[in-house]
Amino acid sequence: MITDIAARAKKASRALVGLPEGAKAQALRAAAQGLREKRADLERENARDVAGARERGLSTAMIDRLTLTEGVIESMARALEEIADLPDPVGRITGMTRRPNGLVVGKMKIPIGVVAIIYESRPNVTADAAGLCLKAGNAVILRGGSEAIHSNSAIAEVLKGALARSGIEPDVIGFIPVTDRQAISELLSLEEYIDLVIPRGGEGLIRTVVENSRIPVLKHYKGVCHIFVDRDADFGKAYSICINAKVQRPGVCNAMETLLVDEAVARDFLPGMIGLFREHGVEIRGCEKTRAIVDGVLPATEDDWYTEFLDLVLAVKVTAGMQEAIDHIEQYGSDHTEAIITENYTRAMEFLRMVDSSTVLVNASTRFADGGEFGLGAEVGISTSKIHSYGPMGIEDLTIGKFIVFGDGQIRT
Amino acid sequence: MITDIAARAKKASRALVGLPEGAKAQALRAAAQGLREKRADLERENARDVAGARERGLSTAMIDRLTLTEGVIESMARALEEIADLPDPVGRITGMTRRPNGLVVGKMKIPIGVVAIIYESRPNVTADAAGLCLKAGNAVILRGGSEAIHSNSAIAEVLKGALARSGIEPDVIGFIPVTDRQAISELLSLEEYIDLVIPRGGEGLIRTVVENSRIPVLKHYKGVCHIFVDRDADFGKAYSICINAKVQRPGVCNAMETLLVDEAVARDFLPGMIGLFREHGVEIRGCEKTRAIVDGVLPATEDDWYTEFLDLVLAVKVTAGMQEAIDHIEQYGSDHTEAIITENYTRAMEFLRMVDSSTVLVNASTRFADGGEFGLGAEVGISTSKIHSYGPMGIEDLTIGKFIVFGDGQIRT
Repeated sequence: MITDIAARAKKASRALVGLPEGAKAQALRAAAQGLREKRADLERENARDVAGARERGLSTAMIDRLTLTEGVIESMARALEEIADLPDPVGRITGMTRRPNGLVVGKMKIPIGVVAIIYESRPNVTADAAGLCLKAGNAVILRGGSEAIHSNSAIAEVLKGALARSGIEPDVIGFIPVTDRQAISELLSLEEYIDLVIPRGGEGLIRTVVENSRIPVLKHYKGVCHIFVDRDADFGKAYSICINAKVQRPGVCNAMETLLVDEAVARDFLPGMIGLFREHGVEIRGCEKTRAIVDGVLPATEDDWYTEFLDLVLAVKVTAGMQEAIDHIEQYGSDHTEAIITENYTRAMEFLRMVDSSTVLVNASTRFADGGEFGLGAEVGISTSKIHSYGPMGIEDLTIGKFIVFGDGQIRT
Repeated sequence: MITDIAARAKKASRALVGLPEGAKAQALRAAAQGLREKRADLERENARDVAGARERGLSTAMIDRLTLTEGVIESMARALEEIADLPDPVGRITGMTRRPNGLVVGKMKIPIGVVAIIYESRPNVTADAAGLCLKAGNAVILRGGSEAIHSNSAIAEVLKGALARSGIEPDVIGFIPVTDRQAISELLSLEEYIDLVIPRGGEGLIRTVVENSRIPVLKHYKGVCHIFVDRDADFGKAYSICINAKVQRPGVCNAMETLLVDEAVARDFLPGMIGLFREHGVEIRGCEKTRAIVDGVLPATEDDWYTEFLDLVLAVKVTAGMQEAIDHIEQYGSDHTEAIITENYTRAMEFLRMVDSSTVLVNASTRFADGGEFGLGAEVGISTSKIHSYGPMGIEDLTIGKFIVFGDGQIRT
């Protein structure tokens, strides 16, 4: 059944290449309208998932993320409309140059083909991922988690119905209705039909996908994001950015997990900073130097430097300058997002150049590492592999350039 | 030992990010000079490989590809000098835009990191691949075939010596001195140290790599390249392009393997075309319609349509028009390279748009699908996966863009 869904998606994807932008945008708007009209159905199916989650004793946080309220459904619909409005990358021609033999060579953007999304928990991924893939001319195969199976299935049905009404083959959305691990293994062997796999969820899910896939995978395992407070930092900016990066939404991948502070300012900076964190309920685990400056800080273990706490817990380390901070990020970081807070031009540019994480910021919160915030419209995921896409991945990276060549009879000699 | 080579390459790769273009170019020129100066050593080591190849009864063609003559060594040296002259992609900043909140967001090109090349036969890959990787700021791990182990090792030593004399840590070239399959398995598990694997060689080697790698792989399995002769083709162009594509170098991946002919012109076109092929010693295997037009054509089997002959053998099929040709390419092709021969503007543009192979040409030979011919300088491989790089892959695709963000205190609300 899974092979059949993938084969049909592959076949249906061919027609998407030639589809004009207007047709894709119209279908996405119809899908948005469909979600609004079918709200009662979606809420009913979602209630089954929520009841199941309660029975299985899932945490309140997880049940919150699972629940489809009127507001969540409306924001799903609006996201589809925003995707509809994004410029279509498909067919864009770039870099045409004339070669000495008269050949004119350049690149044309085409869809990747068939993209499989393997995800957990939040049902809105179903609509977002399908919308982004479709806009870029790709078929999508959706395999959500068991906890959201009824919600995801209902959303996929609404989307497929809107496609059919818009004259697009509904097989371009392949929904996998089974949620066991066996289904993932089968999916990951279908190199013939699937061009790219994007897993979204916990580190365990992502490692399973990477270890079992013959298909290219774009993923990030985790976000151990750092902020380095330089000796020339503006403390006001540093306080507000660090609080924002740790506290505003601690459970997401672009929240700060480790704070690095230049020892030249650690004595002046840390007492106020840690005081603020404590007011926000953040538990601090510090290096020896941190503990010598501020009372009551727990000792950080070696493991803490590698940890994505996803919670109101922060590791703090005092470094002998920027180079030690960069070395720390290189050793313990996850290539996700790092920021420097400084008024020093030279160190700002050096940090930007030498830290090779997928997003590097100067004087701004790590929480901005997000496709929407970067102007990509929305993101289908975040990649920390330096292949194809690095950082938030939008519709542009759901296409690839093929070489096109205009000749007038040239042969190779 | 292999893990150690990879770990040292990873460590050494960090210094390459900050290396100015001039330093990399100077090291490449020193490497070119080193190859010329050590010609006698290279020829002596190569003679050991050639003797071994003779003992093992390798074909004359394989021994030819293995042999390092003065001309081959000089062209390796010149290739390194050409790579030295290519513009450096690292550090290039693109797409900076100002967001509504004042953040300035764009991308900066950085090296991928550590690239492993697993290859067979031709020792010049050792110098080419190392040169391209180094120019783009990457460390490289080279694992060549057993038949060329002494040649490859000698070339790698010359390159490492030139790096050392130029003040670059020689560990950025990691040479794997063992050639068993176990070494490949170990290499492919080193996700922590290696960012990308590029296998170059026969389909068997490439499948082994894809099936065993946890690291992203860029590859093409084979090149089953097609030329479609449209009803509005200029026969003169068609004859010379088809002969060039099949005959000029039949053993390479961008040679034509199947000729597709619109039936509207098949009776007029095929007798002359097949006559020319026969003059060049090409064996023709045709569909029923082809066999009804030209005497003495062998019947093509279903397998023939999938086959990369790499020899003076050609499959020929008459199609009911362009759509059937495109469908045939979709079903039997390998996403490598296809061409249309036509004077018809609309069908030229339609073919260019609807065929999603990595290179699509109008009125030019498939043999042009090559990094050098496309102006990339040289290629580290050809990709037929629609991920990261599609078609010939040059130094540009040995880098990736990270997001860089200039703020002045922004926090996310």
